[in-house]
Amino acid sequence: MTLPPEHPWWVADTANSRLVRAMRAQSVDRPPVWFMRQAGRSLPEYREVRAGIPMLDTCLDPSLAAEITLQPVRRHGVDAAIFFSDIVVPVKCAGVDVVITPGVGPVVADPFAEVTDLDRLPQPAPEMFDAVAEGVRQTVAQLGSTPLIGFAGAPFTVASYLIEGGPSRDLPKTKAMMIRQPEMFAGLLGKLADLASEFLRVQITAGASAMQLFDSWVGALPARLYRQHVLPHTMRVFEQVADLGVPRVHFGVGANHLASDMAGAGCDVLGVDFRVDLDAVPTAIRSQLPLQGNLDPAVLLTDADTIEAEVRRVLAAGRALRGHVFNLGHGVLPDTPADNVTAAVRAVQEFGESFEGVA
Amino acid sequence: MTLPPEHPWWVADTANSRLVRAMRAQSVDRPPVWFMRQAGRSLPEYREVRAGIPMLDTCLDPSLAAEITLQPVRRHGVDAAIFFSDIVVPVKCAGVDVVITPGVGPVVADPFAEVTDLDRLPQPAPEMFDAVAEGVRQTVAQLGSTPLIGFAGAPFTVASYLIEGGPSRDLPKTKAMMIRQPEMFAGLLGKLADLASEFLRVQITAGASAMQLFDSWVGALPARLYRQHVLPHTMRVFEQVADLGVPRVHFGVGANHLASDMAGAGCDVLGVDFRVDLDAVPTAIRSQLPLQGNLDPAVLLTDADTIEAEVRRVLAAGRALRGHVFNLGHGVLPDTPADNVTAAVRAVQEFGESFEGVA
Repeated sequence: MTLPPEHPWWVADTANSRLVRAMRAQSVDRPPVWFMRQAGRSLPEYREVRAGIPMLDTCLDPSLAAEITLQPVRRHGVDAAIFFSDIVVPVKCAGVDVVITPGVGPVVADPFAEVTDLDRLPQPAPEMFDAVAEGVRQTVAQLGSTPLIGFAGAPFTVASYLIEGGPSRDLPKTKAMMIRQPEMFAGLLGKLADLASEFLRVQITAGASAMQLFDSWVGALPARLYRQHVLPHTMRVFEQVADLGVPRVHFGVGANHLASDMAGAGCDVLGVDFRVDLDAVPTAIRSQLPLQGNLDPAVLLTDADTIEAEVRRVLAAGRALRGHVFNLGHGVLPDTPADNVTAAVRAVQEFGESFEGVA
Repeated sequence: MTLPPEHPWWVADTANSRLVRAMRAQSVDRPPVWFMRQAGRSLPEYREVRAGIPMLDTCLDPSLAAEITLQPVRRHGVDAAIFFSDIVVPVKCAGVDVVITPGVGPVVADPFAEVTDLDRLPQPAPEMFDAVAEGVRQTVAQLGSTPLIGFAGAPFTVASYLIEGGPSRDLPKTKAMMIRQPEMFAGLLGKLADLASEFLRVQITAGASAMQLFDSWVGALPARLYRQHVLPHTMRVFEQVADLGVPRVHFGVGANHLASDMAGAGCDVLGVDFRVDLDAVPTAIRSQLPLQGNLDPAVLLTDADTIEAEVRRVLAAGRALRGHVFNLGHGVLPDTPADNVTAAVRAVQEFGESFEGVA
């Protein structure tokens, strides 16, 4: 595949990395491996540098965010870094009063309820994300040939925090707004789609070679509501970064009933959560896109033998795919021993077989 | 359908109720309606009688449990009561040190980890559940022709509390035991299946006309693990109460990827959670069993017009089924205004059309 001339240098620079090749359904010597939440509480070096520093301050400190992003690459030898961030970073940068309370999650001081609240979200501009751009540049400078993945929360999940005021399993206010104030809901998701797009553009322009859009809470919706109220905005995010030419991953938690819709949202790779084995994903999706996933994060709490057996099972299921990016089926759990994460990476390196690719 | 002569009197007594007829795919004048967690915090009269009394003490006080079970029948005019209980009641009755901590959920003092812990669960005997039997008898005596549904947690969900020591979204210890100590896990689920069966037998023998087996956490498993480690034990529960001849409902949360397996576990009715519309349930399941569900509980936090519109949508989707028991797609949320629950019941009464039935 020849890259169009207008593509930025970094896309060319990591175009032959395992990660980018697998995401493009090109041949690789073995599946690339990285783990969602690979940077975080499972690493002693993370707990050390984070000590006493609030989460969002960490995300917005360029050298600290870069250091944390690099830690799992150094320790585990994963094939990609993902920029250390949080789903609410873009709205924080846009001026919303949000903090991340340990043990709770994002807490929004004044939840969004009225149409006038939409005015609290300004038109996005790259300058809002200068700290993130600088963090990405510092990261990429140290990563060498290892690609960096940019990260953003999907409009629905970010909206749910703004509407509920914090994490909520049942999303009652979000669903009520969707049903009773569909125009306000669409206005909010539209603004958040633009914000996510700009946030991703900034990361890619600063050096990210791929991106992932993360829809943590979307599994709470039936397909009917997802298609009507969410999918158009998610599609807009993918569209608005399409010109940058980096592979785009789409991932939702507990959203297997939405898999066909999510696969058709304009992404290049679909992340699969641990609830459905890769070989049980519908054929229409498997023949359309490379998949990312999906070792159960709970397996990393066991032992080296169990981890090896489970990694080999996931690798075997991945062999029949168009392309396979080895990952977990959700993020690394906080109490995971770092050595177990390394053991999983080693098992992928040892047992992952070469892929012919179709592209 | 003629009942075999050995069937107990109460099965004959409510055999012509809307609930039992719909669950047997027989003709009804309209779908029956009841709601999971219809007895509970949404009712002021519940909060009044519960004040200061711990949850498990309430469940095991026969007249208090009966009173709470009857409250939503009186207030909303639902077509069925469900015996007020909790998923951990059977293990509490079997001697396990478990309390329900408000705002947290069940907390097990000494979680199950070693094979020797299995000895802490005695052989089930009906006498363990005398308080529940008495509560059921008092309830049925006051219910008249309205049927009572018996309730038990499924072996997997109860096991998860015993292993994790409390509620856990990720179930790391449960999954680790399943994978690394499969024999202990099978031993535990086997014992819990026998306990659930006895607990349900006691409720049915005391007067319940139907039963529901509730698997709250099973959605966290892929079908592969479900089939191997869970389904055989769930099937045993349904088998062990089959001779009592009451309709058996099977319900799991976020478990739509397991729907075919759950539908084939030996139940007579499959409960469908709110994430998949009734008309999107696979045809093989819809043609096999009546379905129960699946208004989103979040809709009950809106307003009368929205509730009516959503109830009519669910009723319309239910019309194409073999049988339809109107319910929520999960339990009533604690902050739900009681009047909204009544409004939903009224809408089912007003707009539910007659069903021919196939049996």
